[in-house]
Order: sequence, then C-alpha cells, then structure tokens
Amino acid sequence: MASIEPFDAVDLIKTKRDGGTLSTPQISWLVDAYTRGYVADEQMSAMTMAIFLNGMQPQEIKDLTLAMIATGETLDFSGLSKATTDKHSTGGVGDKITLPLAPLVASFGVAVPQLSGRGLGHTGGTLDKLESIPGWRAKLSNDEFMRQLEEVGAVVCAAGAGLAPADGKLYALRDITGTVEAIPLIASSIMSKKIAEGTASLVLDVKHGSGAFMQDPVRSRELAEVMVRLGNDAGTRTVALLTNMHVPLGLAIGNANEVRESVEVLAGGGPADVVELTVALAREMLALAGLPDADVESALADGRAMDSWRAMISAQGGDPDAALPTARETQVVTADRDGILVKQEALPFGIAAWRLGAGRARKEDPVQHAAGIDLHAKPGDTVRAGQPLFTLSADEPERFARALEALDGAWAIGDPGTPVDDGGPLIAGRVE
Amino acid sequence: MASIEPFDAVDLIKTKRDGGTLSTPQISWLVDAYTRGYVADEQMSAMTMAIFLNGMQPQEIKDLTLAMIATGETLDFSGLSKATTDKHSTGGVGDKITLPLAPLVASFGVAVPQLSGRGLGHTGGTLDKLESIPGWRAKLSNDEFMRQLEEVGAVVCAAGAGLAPADGKLYALRDITGTVEAIPLIASSIMSKKIAEGTASLVLDVKHGSGAFMQDPVRSRELAEVMVRLGNDAGTRTVALLTNMHVPLGLAIGNANEVRESVEVLAGGGPADVVELTVALAREMLALAGLPDADVESALADGRAMDSWRAMISAQGGDPDAALPTARETQVVTADRDGILVKQEALPFGIAAWRLGAGRARKEDPVQHAAGIDLHAKPGDTVRAGQPLFTLSADEPERFARALEALDGAWAIGDPGTPVDDGGPLIAGRVE
Repeated sequence: MASIEPFDAVDLIKTKRDGGTLSTPQISWLVDAYTRGYVADEQMSAMTMAIFLNGMQPQEIKDLTLAMIATGETLDFSGLSKATTDKHSTGGVGDKITLPLAPLVASFGVAVPQLSGRGLGHTGGTLDKLESIPGWRAKLSNDEFMRQLEEVGAVVCAAGAGLAPADGKLYALRDITGTVEAIPLIASSIMSKKIAEGTASLVLDVKHGSGAFMQDPVRSRELAEVMVRLGNDAGTRTVALLTNMHVPLGLAIGNANEVRESVEVLAGGGPADVVELTVALAREMLALAGLPDADVESALADGRAMDSWRAMISAQGGDPDAALPTARETQVVTADRDGILVKQEALPFGIAAWRLGAGRARKEDPVQHAAGIDLHAKPGDTVRAGQPLFTLSADEPERFARALEALDGAWAIGDPGTPVDDGGPLIAGRVE
Repeated sequence: MASIEPFDAVDLIKTKRDGGTLSTPQISWLVDAYTRGYVADEQMSAMTMAIFLNGMQPQEIKDLTLAMIATGETLDFSGLSKATTDKHSTGGVGDKITLPLAPLVASFGVAVPQLSGRGLGHTGGTLDKLESIPGWRAKLSNDEFMRQLEEVGAVVCAAGAGLAPADGKLYALRDITGTVEAIPLIASSIMSKKIAEGTASLVLDVKHGSGAFMQDPVRSRELAEVMVRLGNDAGTRTVALLTNMHVPLGLAIGNANEVRESVEVLAGGGPADVVELTVALAREMLALAGLPDADVESALADGRAMDSWRAMISAQGGDPDAALPTARETQVVTADRDGILVKQEALPFGIAAWRLGAGRARKEDPVQHAAGIDLHAKPGDTVRAGQPLFTLSADEPERFARALEALDGAWAIGDPGTPVDDGGPLIAGRVE
C-alpha cells in the first residue's frame, strides 16, 4: 500500500493553487514523475493553470528548467575546435533571420548549432523555409551534425526528441489547455532546450507587437529578463534583444520567397529591416563568442557570408543554385488611392500566408513551399492609386478569398502627415 | 476538416483564465462535450483550476448546474400521493443524522427520497452505516423505490449512475487535481444531483469547523447561500442550516455504533446534540412540506418515529431487531488528570476512526462495520483522572497504534475555568 513516491501530486497542485512556492525536490520530482507518466496529464494541466494564474518565483523557474533538462540527453561541444553560439527567436511573421544569420556568424570561424522547429499556426518554421531548397534535408545524424559544425560552422537542423522530452510533452498539453502564454512556462520551455543543446552562448530575439505571441512589450521584456537570467545561471552566456513584430519583417512572408530574400541579404542587399536585425544579432553572437570587433557588414558585402551559406546548404544535400519553387497562381492587391501606407499589421498578414498554404494547422500537415505573400510597400512608403501593394501566391486559387478575408482592415493608406502605425523602432531594447 | 462543434474548448478555458464570464450556451456545450468525451480531461482540469482561482458569476453557476442535470435522467415524484422533502449534509465526523431524521419526517406522512453515497476518507457514508444492519440492502429498483416512498415514506438508498453523470466524471477529476474546494463546483455538484432527484423541497446542513470539508464559517455560509439560490431558482424549495462540525456529532463515530446511537434518538433518548440537530432539520423539512406546526419531539417520544424506522429498515430487507456487529478488539483511553475536557477536535477523531477500519481510502475498499470510536465525555464535561474518555474498536489490534497517533493533541483536559474549544453553538445560522 505504501507509495515509494516522495510527494503527492495533489499536494503540490494545492500548494501552487494557494499561492505557495514549490521546493527544488518537489519540482524535480513533479517533472520526472510527469515524464514517467506517474503524474497524469490532467494533474499537470491543473498545475500549469495554477502556475499561469499564480506565477512562479525565480528559483522555481530555474528548478523547472533544470528538471526538464534532466529528463533527457544533453549535447557536448567541448570536442569542437570552435566556440559555439546560437540564436533563438520567439517567432513572428516574415522572420527568416536565422537563414542569413547562421552562415554570417559562421563565416567568422564560430560554430552555430541551430536546432530548429517547424511552423505551427501563423508563425513560420525555419526548417519549412529551408526545405523549399531542392535536396536540402533537415535531419542529420549526430556524427553528421558534429562534422558539419567543425567543417562548415553553421548547421540548421531538426532537434531530436532526446533533448528535454518533458518539454515536448508539457508543450503539447499547454497547447490544448490554454496555458501557453505563462512566462515561467515559456521561459523554461525555450531555455531547457537551448541549455540542453549545449551552446556556450545564446542570443535571444524576444518579439513584441501584433505578430508576436507575447504582444505586450512590458510582458515580453519580463520574458526576456527571465530567460537571460535562466541562461546565465545555467552557465550559458545569454543576451536578449527586444524587437518589434508589429509589422512583418522584410518583404517576404512564406517559405521559398523568404529563402530568396535571405539570399539577397547574404549578397549584400535585401530589405533594410532584415539587414539591420541580422547585423545586430550577429554582433551580439560574435561578441559572446569572443569576437566583439568582427566587421559583420563586410562579411555580407564581400561574399564571405554567401560562401558560408552555400557550404551550409550543400553540406545538408541542398543545391544552392537550384531554382526555388514558384506558385501556380498569384493575385495582386493594389492601392485604392494616393497617400502614405500607414498600417500593415503583422498578425493578419501571417494568418493570410498561413491560409494560402505557407503554414500548417496541425503538426502532421504539409506546407506548400511556394505559397505566401510578397509585400511591395512598407509602412511610411508613399503609394499611388493602382500601384501593387502586395502579391498573394498559392497553388490553389480558391485559397485567395479566405486569405483576403484575414487581410480586411490589416492595411491602410492615409493622407500625408497621418501617423504611421509601425509599432516603434525595430530594436527596442537589450537585456543582459 | 470543419468541426460541427459550436465552441472551442481552448477559447472557453482562456475566457475563464482571463477572468471573463462564460455564456449559457458555452457552459451547456462544455458540460455536454465533456460528458461525451469531446472535451478532454486535461482541458476540463485546466478549466476547473481557472474556475477555482477566478470564480464564477451566479448565472454561470446556475448554468453549470442545469447543464450537469441535462446530461442524465431526472426522477419524477408527481405520481406520489405525498409531498417530498430531502436533506443533504456536507458531511462530518459522527454525522448520522439521516438515520433518525428520514423516518422521523416520514412519520408525518411526508416522503423522504434520500439518495445517499458511501464514505471516503474521514467522513462516513450513510449507506455504510446502514449496511451494518444484517440483511439491509442499499440498492433498490426504480419500482421498489417508488413503492417504498408511497408505503413507508422514508427511503435511504444508493443513487444510480443515471443522475447528472457529468458530476460523477467531474468530481473524480477534481479529486485528483486539487480543485475540490471551489464553491461554484461544490455547489453545482451537490445541487445538480439533488435537483435531478426531483424532490420538491430540500434542507441543507452546511457544516463548518475542523471536521467539515469547508472549515471556514464565512466560506461555508457563502456555499450555503449559493446552493439555496440554485435550489430555489430551479424550483426546489431550499433552506440551509449552518452547523458546527468542530467537535464530533454525538458520542459514536463509525458505522454500527452510529446506528445504535440513532436508534437511541428514535427511542426518545440519545445525545443532546444529535437530538437538537435532528429536530431542527426535521422542523425545516416538515415546514417546507407544508407542516410548519408538526410536533416533532412527540413523534420521537411516543414511538411513531421508531415505527417508521422499523418499517424503513424492513422494507429494504434489514432486520431491525438483529444484533449489530461488535469489534473483536477494543482499547480504552483514560483521563490522565482531573479537570474539564476542553478540546475534542473532529478531524483527528474522524481520521482515527477511518484508520480503525470504519472508513475507506479508495472507493473499492470495504469498511469494517464494527470499527470506530465511542466517546465517553464531551467538551465541557468534568472528568476525573483514570476515567475512560473514549474507546477505540477494531477487528485488528495492530490498527490501534496509527489511530492513537492521529489523536495525539486532538483532546485536552484543562483546569476549571479554561475556555472550552467547542467551535460555538451547534446551529450557527440559517439561510433561506
């Protein structure tokens, strides 16, 4: 009759429900017992709702993160001849920054072990984007991964299920129980995987604004502060930039078109906002890797970043010279008057691209690599009546109507002098 | 791909999580979809935690109650020649009041359809107590139930699973997720079953104090107010008494010994507190059934209530004259000094009786009908050193040590003049 379990799940739920603090052994047991299946999903979902509403102390968040790491394997890069650094973005619309960033940083002789995910809902996934390149594959063996890190430096590949498996189980539960947006749970979810991944340093791109999953800038700063503290406490040197996701990043939203835009940046061109954020994040990563004075712009201008990109794509079976897929159908939306583009809201553009086929509603759905949206103007630009504002691309023309529905009210043209609703500066702050 | 469900469970969870109010159709759908299994246990447990922490508006509690009733059958007593009235107690230690109360009220020609449950943890169950009478059976067919109501008036039997099945499913979930003690959930759980049961009127015995599951008198009054309103709104005339469960009720805690004490009350004797509460609840029930001037004390004194008891027990196969089981082992605890018994805390005495075998830890466990505790003094009584204070009874002598452990510090003898810790008057208030 006597249980050999040191704690009772109901007691721990009640502690958190009543605003109390869980101890290190309690959290460690809870996460382990949940991963083993001894603590049931319905108990963990009551616990996550109690955490959502009553919060967690910094020590509890740290304990939760370490407990999730302890449920799985951790990678070890100590055998590499290079320093390691990584980036994580909380996700947004048109956020293809990893694509130019990883090879750019690697071109300075630093290793970037970027374990990525796929997109779900209105935010795209880095692996989905790269898979629009013919031949490129996301899955690498451990040996291939280590060899590419040593030889090429930049690796973007699928994370195995072995890192922090408790996080995967817990995230799936939070997704169906309305408990995704709790800072302690977001922070521990992201940081458990990044710390288990073994990078020596990490730069976080924490977004706010309509297209970010944490829209409020005060809350997204709080999230950044919690994550930076978690990383540094665990020995992963961590810095965060607080960036604006009120309007789409760059001009391309989709998969193949985002690869095209990334290649433009690697060729020394590309939209100003994508270049600005790529350069800022690269500087942070290189500084953490011991190269605070790296001349990042030159590496974009002189082709070194592009060489690194080509090596990275080729190493994973991709053909960097192959033509990218194009959609069977397009539809252009034009300006209905002269004026200034004063609004271009990220979230509805993300939803529209998703409905065109660029994203997926369920994990097992495929994405259509050529589907998406190309913007022809950005907020603040002067436009003339009849001028193309953006182009929708899809393989099936019946998708246009529902995409256009999502875009109803998402953009506006105003008279000169109308304030532009751009959500403020692209880089709004920094946390270290 | 398109769902025919009118709502999304995650949206409803987020509404309650963020302090919002759920609409009547939303609650109706949620309860129905949960009963069908479309809304998962883990979603409902997140919802119940959000309800626990953010509460519910009166209309939401009413909607929840009606939605739970709608998941099952309802009984109909309109064919009976008698008025119906029922009682529900929130449970306590030594609470055998149903046993004398149901036949007492029935002796006035009123029908008492008492659908009861079994005990779990430190509070006993009415069916467990009655099952210590040789031959008595808790399970009746619908026909037997109706015939006994018409002919005898008093029926105490097991509730079928057909009444408010959503409540059974939800209660089991709350039990393992630390969400039992939420007033909206307790009130809707109790009242859904009582309203579905079809009684025309209902008296609630809502307890506070150490042995009650809602210990705080302010919260237990709130619970009573919510339940009285629910009952009256649904057309079941409802009144509540607020009663004190700080000390055990009467002198017997167990099963067979509680039947013995009940028979004493029905014979015109018994402990003063049991008589007081039985009479007070009987007056409330009879008043609701149209007999405000019924002479309740006379029915106890002149044997009418006892006749009604014998008829009730016989109708369910029990022998009212049969000897009740006695325990194989007893242990007497005596006073260690002269003085006044100033403390006798209900909860530890309930736990001790449970450990002796009178209660069960899991639904499927049996109870030992002869196990329990007989008290020989009540708070306020003068005691002499060496005088028996209480007797423990059990079938297995090895149970005494753990029962005595529970009783450590549960009682105290003080000098004359020491305040007696009795939790105040037995009947502390009334809500209608």
